[in-house]
Amino acid sequence: MSYDWISFTTDYGLDDGFVAACRGVIAQLVPRVGVIDVTHAVPPQRIRQGAAALAQTVNYLPESVHLAVVDPGVGTARRNVVVVAGRGLLVGPDNGLLLPAAEELGGVFDAFELVNPEFRLPAVSATFHGRDIFAPAAAHLALGVPPEQFGPPVHDLVRLPEPTVTVLPGKLVSEVLTVDHFGNLQFAAKFRDLEAASISGKATVHSGLGVFEVALGRTFADVPTGTAVLYEDSAGQLALAVNGGSAAAVLGQSIQECTITSSPTAS
Amino acid sequence: MSYDWISFTTDYGLDDGFVAACRGVIAQLVPRVGVIDVTHAVPPQRIRQGAAALAQTVNYLPESVHLAVVDPGVGTARRNVVVVAGRGLLVGPDNGLLLPAAEELGGVFDAFELVNPEFRLPAVSATFHGRDIFAPAAAHLALGVPPEQFGPPVHDLVRLPEPTVTVLPGKLVSEVLTVDHFGNLQFAAKFRDLEAASISGKATVHSGLGVFEVALGRTFADVPTGTAVLYEDSAGQLALAVNGGSAAAVLGQSIQECTITSSPTAS
Amino acid sequence: MSYDWISFTTDYGLDDGFVAACRGVIAQLVPRVGVIDVTHAVPPQRIRQGAAALAQTVNYLPESVHLAVVDPGVGTARRNVVVVAGRGLLVGPDNGLLLPAAEELGGVFDAFELVNPEFRLPAVSATFHGRDIFAPAAAHLALGVPPEQFGPPVHDLVRLPEPTVTVLPGKLVSEVLTVDHFGNLQFAAKFRDLEAASISGKATVHSGLGVFEVALGRTFADVPTGTAVLYEDSAGQLALAVNGGSAAAVLGQSIQECTITSSPTAS
Repeated sequence: MSYDWISFTTDYGLDDGFVAACRGVIAQLVPRVGVIDVTHAVPPQRIRQGAAALAQTVNYLPESVHLAVVDPGVGTARRNVVVVAGRGLLVGPDNGLLLPAAEELGGVFDAFELVNPEFRLPAVSATFHGRDIFAPAAAHLALGVPPEQFGPPVHDLVRLPEPTVTVLPGKLVSEVLTVDHFGNLQFAAKFRDLEAASISGKATVHSGLGVFEVALGRTFADVPTGTAVLYEDSAGQLALAVNGGSAAAVLGQSIQECTITSSPTAS
Repeated sequence: MSYDWISFTTDYGLDDGFVAACRGVIAQLVPRVGVIDVTHAVPPQRIRQGAAALAQTVNYLPESVHLAVVDPGVGTARRNVVVVAGRGLLVGPDNGLLLPAAEELGGVFDAFELVNPEFRLPAVSATFHGRDIFAPAAAHLALGVPPEQFGPPVHDLVRLPEPTVTVLPGKLVSEVLTVDHFGNLQFAAKFRDLEAASISGKATVHSGLGVFEVALGRTFADVPTGTAVLYEDSAGQLALAVNGGSAAAVLGQSIQECTITSSPTAS
Repeated sequence: MSYDWISFTTDYGLDDGFVAACRGVIAQLVPRVGVIDVTHAVPPQRIRQGAAALAQTVNYLPESVHLAVVDPGVGTARRNVVVVAGRGLLVGPDNGLLLPAAEELGGVFDAFELVNPEFRLPAVSATFHGRDIFAPAAAHLALGVPPEQFGPPVHDLVRLPEPTVTVLPGKLVSEVLTVDHFGNLQFAAKFRDLEAASISGKATVHSGLGVFEVALGRTFADVPTGTAVLYEDSAGQLALAVNGGSAAAVLGQSIQECTITSSPTAS
């Protein structure tokens, strides 16, 4: 099976020619393929954030080879892999980056290590496997090379630890998954976890920086400008926004976890 | 009529998968279409700046469906629209964002509300109409679906207030339209407004941060390095640059308005 | 000869519609061409950094017309040129930007000034030659217009001064070429220059900010987290990284030169 699309997610940034070198390698091998950049602005080496960005996007992409590289262990013994999911293939380092997206795409069916030198550039550098190993692999997979030709099967893929969410009566504790471009905080919790914790109408958010009263709503503009709102975001997660502002500017860009409790003034 | 190109302007940034999700929706509906990103770095929710970036670019693009989303009111009662211009179509929120570009493209001929569920994703979120409503609409328009099939006609499109420009003898007061990547200030005034105000050779720029002597010129390099120049920019507007530097760094990134007067030392 | 690909390198940023206007001009003239963005984040007017980004990428791109614009002298008497290299063409200002890439592509065979009005936009602005002269030139070259039809031959192309590298016994002094997205410093020196200077195992890096002990290695992860390593980077240059961190954050983002000496504790 061949593919018409490759999606591309990295922490390479757009300041240098890194992304272009990978696209050039792909263009030479399979000029007809379309490449959709998911993002190249994953914070350097933040595997979990890259995994979340990819997982929350794949269901809106055409069936693709998903090329993703956030790879603090490049050049060490960590494996390079192709993961066969229910819908589509994923290529990248075996460090947990690919698996949340694979779950969204119907789960992991198979995985193979990328060791066949036939599908690499002739010279492989120690620090740029995106260009030398992963991009050529994605291109060959798009051409229809079967995944099992790349190397031996992998049965023990590395997984990221599950993010923590605790639901108690009147209290929800959740890790922050990502902070988006608008400063909206996305939690590992779902909106329905608020209901499970019997929190409705209004709530109190506790973070290291203080205590904030927030309303529950459907969209930013359900609350007055400058006011905070808890809502279900477009990826189906619980999220916190400030209408016309930035929740991250209030709660800190690097916030890791929040506790949300029933507000004493809840309606 | 079908289209080969979609242009794409947002305030989504490139840090998350938002732009990719929209491109994926388009790619699934109309894989053959080319997408040209105008910019995704409109400052969050700054409608006027998004409108200016799009309006100053459209005349250099092939005939397109122009998809633009800067949408602080997402999820509220504000309408989603397609605007039929003299050359091309525009899709986005009805908040004034699309109209300056429509004027550049020969003016508004028609407009329709986007309410037909046939041309949306099956599930529409409250906060990401770019992915769920606007991108599918742009794709269907590129496929040749007639605009009138999307919903009822709109005769009262929302318009942004005109930016203020005041021409007096020896004095020009103008709103700042945009500040570009190089820190050049672009005014709502035209270069010829300087002449109308009888300002030539040299001038004095008054801003909240102080008073600056500037020369009138044709390009940055007409003045010594580190010196300011008033010139006609590539969009035909009056602009202020510092050769080899940044006018915004001198006058403030968030400058809203300047007063320009004849310099007492004018030649 | 016609081309299927145009590569595109500028200091325009992605905040405005500048890149899109150029892509639109290309799309109108040669809709079938694929455009690969090398980077648009060259620091404003830093010719040497743009030249390095392009030169280190071109060998991974398909045979292309390479369009590059970092152009502090726009609108002055500096020439616009097309350079014919061993493999591919390069289009941009005659300020040294194109020549390192031309060397990578087999050297300069010919060069011509871009003066033929037939291959420009009808109106040429004083400040945006990317849109009005260079993009139309690249598009016409991709269509197969022979380079000599653009204007008279140029035999005295402007060259950047060679970056300085000094190899002494136990001491290597090198200019810093670029600082990448991860904060890794890339030197003008090659890794083998360390050997020529009889430096091995460990070394001492002297910069304006202090003196740092570093190890020689093959990749970041060869040293403990937070530790500095000298290695051969993916472009074949000597480079300095901090594993899990940023060398530029330690040595300064604007560092120009380093002295590397044998460490008294060298193994």
